[in-house]
Amino acid sequence: MSDATRIDAFLGGRLQIAQPVRGYRAGADAVMLAAACPAKSGQSVLELGCGAGVAALCLMTRVAGLDVTGLERDAVFAGLARDNAARNRLKLSVVEADLASLPAELRAISFDHVMMNPPYFDHGTASENRLRAGPRHEVTPLPVWLDAALRRLRPGGKVTVIHQPARLEVLLAGLTGRAGDITIRPIAARAGREAGRLILTARKGARGRLRLMSPFVMHDADRHRGDQEDLTAEAQAVLRHGGKLNE
Amino acid sequence: MSDATRIDAFLGGRLQIAQPVRGYRAGADAVMLAAACPAKSGQSVLELGCGAGVAALCLMTRVAGLDVTGLERDAVFAGLARDNAARNRLKLSVVEADLASLPAELRAISFDHVMMNPPYFDHGTASENRLRAGPRHEVTPLPVWLDAALRRLRPGGKVTVIHQPARLEVLLAGLTGRAGDITIRPIAARAGREAGRLILTARKGARGRLRLMSPFVMHDADRHRGDQEDLTAEAQAVLRHGGKLNE
Repeated sequence: MSDATRIDAFLGGRLQIAQPVRGYRAGADAVMLAAACPAKSGQSVLELGCGAGVAALCLMTRVAGLDVTGLERDAVFAGLARDNAARNRLKLSVVEADLASLPAELRAISFDHVMMNPPYFDHGTASENRLRAGPRHEVTPLPVWLDAALRRLRPGGKVTVIHQPARLEVLLAGLTGRAGDITIRPIAARAGREAGRLILTARKGARGRLRLMSPFVMHDADRHRGDQEDLTAEAQAVLRHGGKLNE
Repeated sequence: MSDATRIDAFLGGRLQIAQPVRGYRAGADAVMLAAACPAKSGQSVLELGCGAGVAALCLMTRVAGLDVTGLERDAVFAGLARDNAARNRLKLSVVEADLASLPAELRAISFDHVMMNPPYFDHGTASENRLRAGPRHEVTPLPVWLDAALRRLRPGGKVTVIHQPARLEVLLAGLTGRAGDITIRPIAARAGREAGRLILTARKGARGRLRLMSPFVMHDADRHRGDQEDLTAEAQAVLRHGGKLNE
């Protein structure tokens, strides 16, 4: 395979991100994760599995004055994340390590927020493409991601996850007794469709009730047009204009 | 207190149901539970905690040829359920027993479907009103309801539950490893609002992925009018015309 990259534009051109031509490339999910993370200026954020840095850099573009660390196991993606931060003049700290065995310097720190977009396909055949094997397949079990997030959060800190609805049982089981104030925001391609993704937020150590919010709807029309100009107003606000994805 | 009852009409007048004047009275939740239960003619259905029989009788009104059993711990409600079945000329079998210790004759039977609308308020102060204490407060823990349902289902049988989103963690924990093909249908008062209820269905012994469906929306307008004529078309189809609530 080739390690060739190409530049993709995010947030209506605000961000220029180098990603592999072949293999995993971040897209709307990373942007929506960043838009849903409720970090405020002055706070610290850890992204687990930051890949080429799309979510972390989107978040830093929307909220100034954050202290953001991206954890990435794959050396090629970690290098891309550093390059992409420099390309966009953003100070992202990238740590190359496995979230299942964090280095001591990270284990010594607590964060105000942890966000993550774990791999979705846990039953697929591992791709021969090295850059696919990590991001596309759940090598590290989802409960290990959740445990790492909860350990690295300060008490009262918030975890934000984007994932498939199919993993809701595992997500909630990993949080029960350790986090509360859970909100679930379904993401649907069209109004009236089942959710293809969900964004879950939870607060470490909190006890408040779980809330199931109204769906975030991506597309207006019944048909998907090739030019993607059928994005809903709320999707345009997030994907094109870098807005916050509210509960 | 008084055990006085009054007659409430359900399904646009198709059903006449005697319920206590004071204390717990079934309403839209029971109707929606019945509308969501996917029972077909010739199948058997057990309702746990049938109260005055609203959900069971709504289901029997929509689907002919069902063999329906209602389990109810409270003698007054069990009597009302029997009276209501007779009043509407429906053959509902009512068993007066606690779901935590089912009689041997029920433990010997498996059902195609189990449905339930367990009490919602698990943190409230027990009401002095005897007829409120059961239905409004979670005397029997929710995991015991789920366990009873799963034990009484045949392999491949379906459980249908209406409950508050706040209990989603407990609902899923009680099903994990024992049921699959889970669908979650949020119920929202208005479009864009968070869900006030959810209807969960699951199949005993199945392994299929969890699905998060689009919300069922109750009211059209931004304001709730006193005459309740702002029901959405889908809510009218279920509440007024006895229709099925589809996934």
